[in-house]
Amino acid sequence: MESEMKATGRAPTNIAFIKYMGKDERGNALPNGQGKNFPENGSISLTLDSLYSTTTVHFSTDYSEDSFTLDGERHAKEAERVIEAMDIVRSLADLTLRAKIVSTNNFGKSRGLSSSASGAAALAFAASTAAGLRLSERELSVLARKFSGSGSRSVPPGWVEWKQPIFDEAGNLVHDSYAESFLPSDHWAIADVVAITEVPSKEVSTTEAHGRVQQSPYRAARLAAMPRKIEDCKRFIYERNFPSLGRLMEAEAWDLHLLFISSGIRYIRSETLRVMENVERWRREGLEAYYTINTGQDVHVLCHEEDANAVRRKLEQLEGVRDIMIGRPGRGAHLLEEHLF
Amino acid sequence: MESEMKATGRAPTNIAFIKYMGKDERGNALPNGQGKNFPENGSISLTLDSLYSTTTVHFSTDYSEDSFTLDGERHAKEAERVIEAMDIVRSLADLTLRAKIVSTNNFGKSRGLSSSASGAAALAFAASTAAGLRLSERELSVLARKFSGSGSRSVPPGWVEWKQPIFDEAGNLVHDSYAESFLPSDHWAIADVVAITEVPSKEVSTTEAHGRVQQSPYRAARLAAMPRKIEDCKRFIYERNFPSLGRLMEAEAWDLHLLFISSGIRYIRSETLRVMENVERWRREGLEAYYTINTGQDVHVLCHEEDANAVRRKLEQLEGVRDIMIGRPGRGAHLLEEHLF
Repeated sequence: MESEMKATGRAPTNIAFIKYMGKDERGNALPNGQGKNFPENGSISLTLDSLYSTTTVHFSTDYSEDSFTLDGERHAKEAERVIEAMDIVRSLADLTLRAKIVSTNNFGKSRGLSSSASGAAALAFAASTAAGLRLSERELSVLARKFSGSGSRSVPPGWVEWKQPIFDEAGNLVHDSYAESFLPSDHWAIADVVAITEVPSKEVSTTEAHGRVQQSPYRAARLAAMPRKIEDCKRFIYERNFPSLGRLMEAEAWDLHLLFISSGIRYIRSETLRVMENVERWRREGLEAYYTINTGQDVHVLCHEEDANAVRRKLEQLEGVRDIMIGRPGRGAHLLEEHLF
Repeated sequence: MESEMKATGRAPTNIAFIKYMGKDERGNALPNGQGKNFPENGSISLTLDSLYSTTTVHFSTDYSEDSFTLDGERHAKEAERVIEAMDIVRSLADLTLRAKIVSTNNFGKSRGLSSSASGAAALAFAASTAAGLRLSERELSVLARKFSGSGSRSVPPGWVEWKQPIFDEAGNLVHDSYAESFLPSDHWAIADVVAITEVPSKEVSTTEAHGRVQQSPYRAARLAAMPRKIEDCKRFIYERNFPSLGRLMEAEAWDLHLLFISSGIRYIRSETLRVMENVERWRREGLEAYYTINTGQDVHVLCHEEDANAVRRKLEQLEGVRDIMIGRPGRGAHLLEEHLF
């Protein structure tokens, strides 16, 4: 029995072309945290391969409390969120055992690299499996979403849509919110070249941002434009129309950050803008590359797979760029045979 | 007679704390260009002293056509606007004579330094006087507005409000749009230290921007918030409350540029943002300074008069800053005895 209550999950980061920001408050009224991290709009993303979280969860009578380490260290704030997540899993599995949770990222955190997404998805897979649950991909996506919204997108492989919840007129939930692939990872050989800028980690957490954007005078207009944007984005991906996807993605990145700025939050730094200006210049010079940014100051440069090294070399020469990582379409969350402990 | 048909006007630039962007289309329906450059929102500005345009207008039978030089050169596009302005003056004065118009700026143009504002106000004063009209300050402000919207603000001295037009329910104009002082220039010793950045002149003209912002999904929400903003801005100036004015001014500068970005226009460059970030840093270090930007990439740093040289020295040390100019509260448009020719 004891040996079966241990599992290790691995899940990658994802890069969103249409972003998640703002939580649907109707979710708060649902029982048992069912509506946790319901997004105010759907989003479209690509699951990546090379940046990932790996997490081992072990339930045992040996433990009198949950313990959590990330990259060998204890982080009080993350531990709190992880224990909250473990309580959800224990409730689903009707368990009371405490657990030891060990997690590693193969990249830095709090850099707008969606470490919370990959972490949430890896934890969802490891914890639910260790607890004896056998969840479907959709159920795993729902569980990861409760841990960290965009974690839902790090469960399925390839090109992914995260769906908004659907309520009927009486306010009853008729369709849950989860992410699923709409195209496999080999549909299109696009690379995400991430430029890590030389600026301190962000001052306002994504969690805090989700709350503050509710006050933006521009929120309603942004949300009203979303269904059309999502439809366009999916069509451009189906058609492998990179210029149209690229322009839509850049406009959406700015739109997200207009929402932030109008809420008194500025993630875009002069170093960020400098990279964006250079991407625009390279494009005028013939290199097909487009940028996006998450809730942070680093820049994701999307390009054709065969241009990834050219983009990397150009980024390396820019002042203010500290590090570069490349992600490609990936397989999503999965279990590993080997455990971290 | 001939000698009396020559006049020289001088008018300064102004810096707006609440900006003018977007034209009220109801003005187009009024006869004789009466509603030209009606603003969609009122604005609040400070008339400056040291950056100005000087313009001499001479009507004479000697001229078979209007001629215009700016800083000794002919500019086809400006000439077109100036001749259009002269036609308005000729119509008001019932004149048919052509004119020679010579104008100089003591600073560069197309830099977001409101050269069109000072130019319009100087031309309005010179041309109307040369044509024998004796206009009140309010009438001069209306005339300058028709030449270039924010020109209306460069006519009165000191702390200025430019008022929106007022229409009744039937769509009749019941109050014209003009600017007037609400406090004299000696009310408050504030300086405007302008950092000219090392970037090319802007790619989208202010005139084009006025049209494109009509399509922004965020325009309506911006306009809805304006009356309250204007009221707050005037109160902070009355009270000489610099922190509140400064924060409002910075938020308004960003709000203006959110409108631009959501219309596909980006005037803020990484060099611009770098100056803004430094102003924020200096403020954290105790120097009371706040920024604003116009329809361009240069940064206006507002500070107490006694800090102007400290701000200048700090700006001089920043990479990407090409030139610095300082403006102080000024006297507005006036006539000169000496002519340019």
